[in-house]
Amino acid sequence: MQPAKPRIAVDAMGGDFGPEVVVPGALAAARKDNLGLILVGNEEMIEKSLSGRKHQGIDLEIVHASEVVEMSEKPSDVLRKKKNSSIQVAFKLIREGRGHGVVSAGNSGATLGCGMFTLGRIKGVERPALASILPSEKGPLILIDVGANVECKPYQLVQFGLMAEVFARSVLHVERPKVGVLTIGEEDDKGNNLVRETVKLFKMSSMNFVGNIEGRDFFTGKADIIVCDGFVGNVSLKLMEGLAISLTKILKEEVNKSWLARLGFLLGIRALKRFGRRIDYAEYGGAPLLGLNGIGIVCHGSSNSKAITNAVLMAGEFIRNGANQLLIDGLGANREISIFGKKALPRSMPR
Amino acid sequence: MQPAKPRIAVDAMGGDFGPEVVVPGALAAARKDNLGLILVGNEEMIEKSLSGRKHQGIDLEIVHASEVVEMSEKPSDVLRKKKNSSIQVAFKLIREGRGHGVVSAGNSGATLGCGMFTLGRIKGVERPALASILPSEKGPLILIDVGANVECKPYQLVQFGLMAEVFARSVLHVERPKVGVLTIGEEDDKGNNLVRETVKLFKMSSMNFVGNIEGRDFFTGKADIIVCDGFVGNVSLKLMEGLAISLTKILKEEVNKSWLARLGFLLGIRALKRFGRRIDYAEYGGAPLLGLNGIGIVCHGSSNSKAITNAVLMAGEFIRNGANQLLIDGLGANREISIFGKKALPRSMPR
Repeated sequence: MQPAKPRIAVDAMGGDFGPEVVVPGALAAARKDNLGLILVGNEEMIEKSLSGRKHQGIDLEIVHASEVVEMSEKPSDVLRKKKNSSIQVAFKLIREGRGHGVVSAGNSGATLGCGMFTLGRIKGVERPALASILPSEKGPLILIDVGANVECKPYQLVQFGLMAEVFARSVLHVERPKVGVLTIGEEDDKGNNLVRETVKLFKMSSMNFVGNIEGRDFFTGKADIIVCDGFVGNVSLKLMEGLAISLTKILKEEVNKSWLARLGFLLGIRALKRFGRRIDYAEYGGAPLLGLNGIGIVCHGSSNSKAITNAVLMAGEFIRNGANQLLIDGLGANREISIFGKKALPRSMPR
Repeated sequence: MQPAKPRIAVDAMGGDFGPEVVVPGALAAARKDNLGLILVGNEEMIEKSLSGRKHQGIDLEIVHASEVVEMSEKPSDVLRKKKNSSIQVAFKLIREGRGHGVVSAGNSGATLGCGMFTLGRIKGVERPALASILPSEKGPLILIDVGANVECKPYQLVQFGLMAEVFARSVLHVERPKVGVLTIGEEDDKGNNLVRETVKLFKMSSMNFVGNIEGRDFFTGKADIIVCDGFVGNVSLKLMEGLAISLTKILKEEVNKSWLARLGFLLGIRALKRFGRRIDYAEYGGAPLLGLNGIGIVCHGSSNSKAITNAVLMAGEFIRNGANQLLIDGLGANREISIFGKKALPRSMPR
């Protein structure tokens, strides 16, 4: 049974800007979708961020956490040494049943590590995977995995596809998501060993598998879900980020060289803003860690309030629609998982 | 000894537009840098493309090739069945000493295959690699390998770095190129197994190794050379291409929605053109296949005349500066290669 009112534990200390950005973002989501909030972190700082902001009528709790995880800390160190960090405390609240999901814009590796250690995995899932939701020409696009697993086996990639498919259906409301594999070249025999073996497995699955996706088809809507290992996924994600930043920088330099161009820029500002909204990662807010025995949404460190709002809304939607139960059902009942589960994999098939 | 006047065999049938684009592009390069040309392909079509175009004074030869390689053909089929294709004939001319280098905008896989099969590898090079030259915030950036080798070993990646370093010095005139490895995370222990082992080897080399490069540092000039396996490199290259196309498309849609924005666009057109030039892949024209016992430059299928011109100029520069001899010397004399060469690799080191 799904809770009538999801309660989201938000790591108030996470991200480059901390409570000043996270708290208003979380409040906006709670107000918009009638969600409960647990703000986890330095109590004094959270109180300060709350003061002067409307939060009457919101089911709101503050849970103090005495430690903060730095962006550069190793996940293993955080797990061992920072048991009172806002990230760890937030996941413990979920384990204790006081909340239903975690949102954090803090150290991603630590969030992944604490999530997996504290909540464990869904039965049947060998590796939880991080799914990034990106804007494309035709609506949201899921890229999975973007960094939780740098070395993967073919059947693990198929699991990533299955999990993302359930997520796309139940949270993003895509009816029959098209699933593709990120590779080079369009033919089945292209790509590296991992991809070639993975494609064979996908073809045997019940998924709406559309085959190989090349980088140039990434944003065209050819697939709603693009599967890859966490190394390739993370490189891709950061490359897109780097390219967007560099293009903007070079464009600004050139526009600023002439007053005519600056004027033109002003005239086009509304179109540019609409453009910005269409390609804004913040529209989707966060990356769900799929396969976790609970709900964890990882936000970019540089998240603004809007991104936090959307991530908290996503967590609420995830919980209300019982997406994790659907994941459990889907993985448990799906014939792929019994075929592809490591132990049940026929000897003749790639591992 | 380097030839006083390099002669470039240009695959006139290559690319999406064939001789109509390739021939004028090649002529412009020959005129600009006093290069000899062999135009290889359908004689009649080449003659037609030449007619009405100034080519007096250019050392020009046409060599007829009766077959054309389609973009979708497999390299192995081309090698076996299309011995009279313009790509194969061009490489044979080099082997026979009638020319010094090949430029082709045709089927990349076939160009790689024919190049390696016809010319062979430089002694000591285990795997030739394709180096893409990209614009960055701070000048040219080499990404190597972008697709010649989808599965790589650590010492092969180190060879790619060595070859790109010689190329950057002798053709792009970068004094002491900064070499980095494409990965996720900045610390040495981040990345996948391949990257971690490769970093250890790079640290032992004499190269100006700057460590891990993440996607977001790609274009900032942190490295002049970024090394990765051909799978990750090709995905990255095509992703950048896809992102640029999609961003342009979405921006156009938004600008076209309002006459004010269209006016603004017109006022800023010169700045936009300067912007376009700064990020134009055609500035560097082609991707050299490094490690080949000869010179082969692969151009994008959609290359315009300017890209062909720049690729032919690059081939000329490559030949004049004796870059391949420098590669041979560098690889032969460099202590890395004797250390890292597969056979000479100490047992304790990663393979």
